Amino acid sequence: MPKIGKSERLIFITSTLVQNPMKLFSLTFFCDKLSCAKSTLSEDIDLVSRIFEQTGQGRLETVSGAAGGVYYIPTMKKEDEIEFLNFLKNELQNSERIVSGGFVYINDIVFNPEVIKKAARIFVRLFLEKEIDYIATVEAKGIALASYVAQYFNKPLVVARNSSKFTEGSTVNISYISGTTGKIETMTMAKKAIKKGARVLFIDDFMRGGGTVRGMKDLLSEFESSLVGVGVLIATKDKKSVDVDYKSLLILEKLDAENKRITFSINPQVIS
Amino acid sequence: MPKIGKSERLIFITSTLVQNPMKLFSLTFFCDKLSCAKSTLSEDIDLVSRIFEQTGQGRLETVSGAAGGVYYIPTMKKEDEIEFLNFLKNELQNSERIVSGGFVYINDIVFNPEVIKKAARIFVRLFLEKEIDYIATVEAKGIALASYVAQYFNKPLVVARNSSKFTEGSTVNISYISGTTGKIETMTMAKKAIKKGARVLFIDDFMRGGGTVRGMKDLLSEFESSLVGVGVLIATKDKKSVDVDYKSLLILEKLDAENKRITFSINPQVIS
Repeated sequence: MPKIGKSERLIFITSTLVQNPMKLFSLTFFCDKLSCAKSTLSEDIDLVSRIFEQTGQGRLETVSGAAGGVYYIPTMKKEDEIEFLNFLKNELQNSERIVSGGFVYINDIVFNPEVIKKAARIFVRLFLEKEIDYIATVEAKGIALASYVAQYFNKPLVVARNSSKFTEGSTVNISYISGTTGKIETMTMAKKAIKKGARVLFIDDFMRGGGTVRGMKDLLSEFESSLVGVGVLIATKDKKSVDVDYKSLLILEKLDAENKRITFSINPQVIS
Repeated sequence: MPKIGKSERLIFITSTLVQNPMKLFSLTFFCDKLSCAKSTLSEDIDLVSRIFEQTGQGRLETVSGAAGGVYYIPTMKKEDEIEFLNFLKNELQNSERIVSGGFVYINDIVFNPEVIKKAARIFVRLFLEKEIDYIATVEAKGIALASYVAQYFNKPLVVARNSSKFTEGSTVNISYISGTTGKIETMTMAKKAIKKGARVLFIDDFMRGGGTVRGMKDLLSEFESSLVGVGVLIATKDKKSVDVDYKSLLILEKLDAENKRITFSINPQVIS
């Protein structure tokens, strides 16, 4: 860059941090790029941090020491979270979403970038304190959401599949009972997918009894890895046989297929 | 915000635009949020635009007139594209990727946010001139990449599946011959997924003969919609029976399973 003033520095710092969530940038990186002193840079970062907090566009975290620096945490303001969850609830309560068999059509929701981007930001807040090595999901409806959560946590995504694909080399397979279908299903993951001793956050679109979560837990134990949390967009009110920290954003309160009525509520645990 | 100076404005404008690619923000939106005059704002936007271009973090496009405003296009500098494609090529040439059956293991690549984020930016540049209503893919390996492309184009993602899921209501199904397996496979999409007359960009991880593309084209014609482009991460050198504009980032030149050697090249069409 030719002439580097304060304006140029602020634009570059903001853009770099926002485009790389959870990625630590050393102060030296910015000082070199922007030819400025550390004291100047610290002032700039404080300013960016203050504006982010005021406008609710996420926040900055600074790490001190030799290996220190600054990174961006993609969260939302509480009031924006609530506004979003209310929007989602109203969208889902549309009776046209009830399809034959008494299921709810949510494909447009779970693959809509505007929606899952915001849901992913809430999951960041909910699981920020966990140490996480991977984000995992099961094909296919949760993949887009999980891929945002992975981006926001800056961790690799791993996707378990329902049938072995010969293009993945040797795989680990387990069977589990799906709460949605009531049938025995298979979950498979490439042996190369996860390193030993990893801590995994499981993200999915829908949860009934928790069969898939138990399946994922069993599968991970084959990798000597553990499930540290579960985030789902929607959970039913069925009893969950799940012994890990799980959070759903919305709860499916009632589905009356005959009278075409469907009711959701915002999970109070999420907004409290 | 209490006191709003130039620094505060630049941080807010940069962050808002970068976090919402291809989304048009009116000047009035920013003037209201930042309590400033349009002339002041125009100067700010020019400055942000100039820094983005200098640092290669994408670019801004301004639209004049009553319905006008400004939006962010997430692209990269040419030299960063080439550096990324070389990195990808070298990653893929690792002989340990060859799995039994003579296939290439790429799951870690296609689900790695750092990688697909950059690939998605290249697809933005390649298909920027097309009018696009949806991004489509087929489960499962291309979904994370396609979901980034969808985010960057600010368009909904639609995912075709290999088997009908009863939770999706009525579906449209077609059969096609997969170039990878040589078998007849089914592609299915919910009737609600795509509006009539839509223009669709298909994104996938891998392309051999183009069977999947033809399948997608047939499927879209059932929706009275059309395929306007195809972007894939890797294509083989096999003859493609595809009559739409398709671009692969890398070309699989040679896979010698016996001697554990695998060679890729960067598609010259992409970097020319």
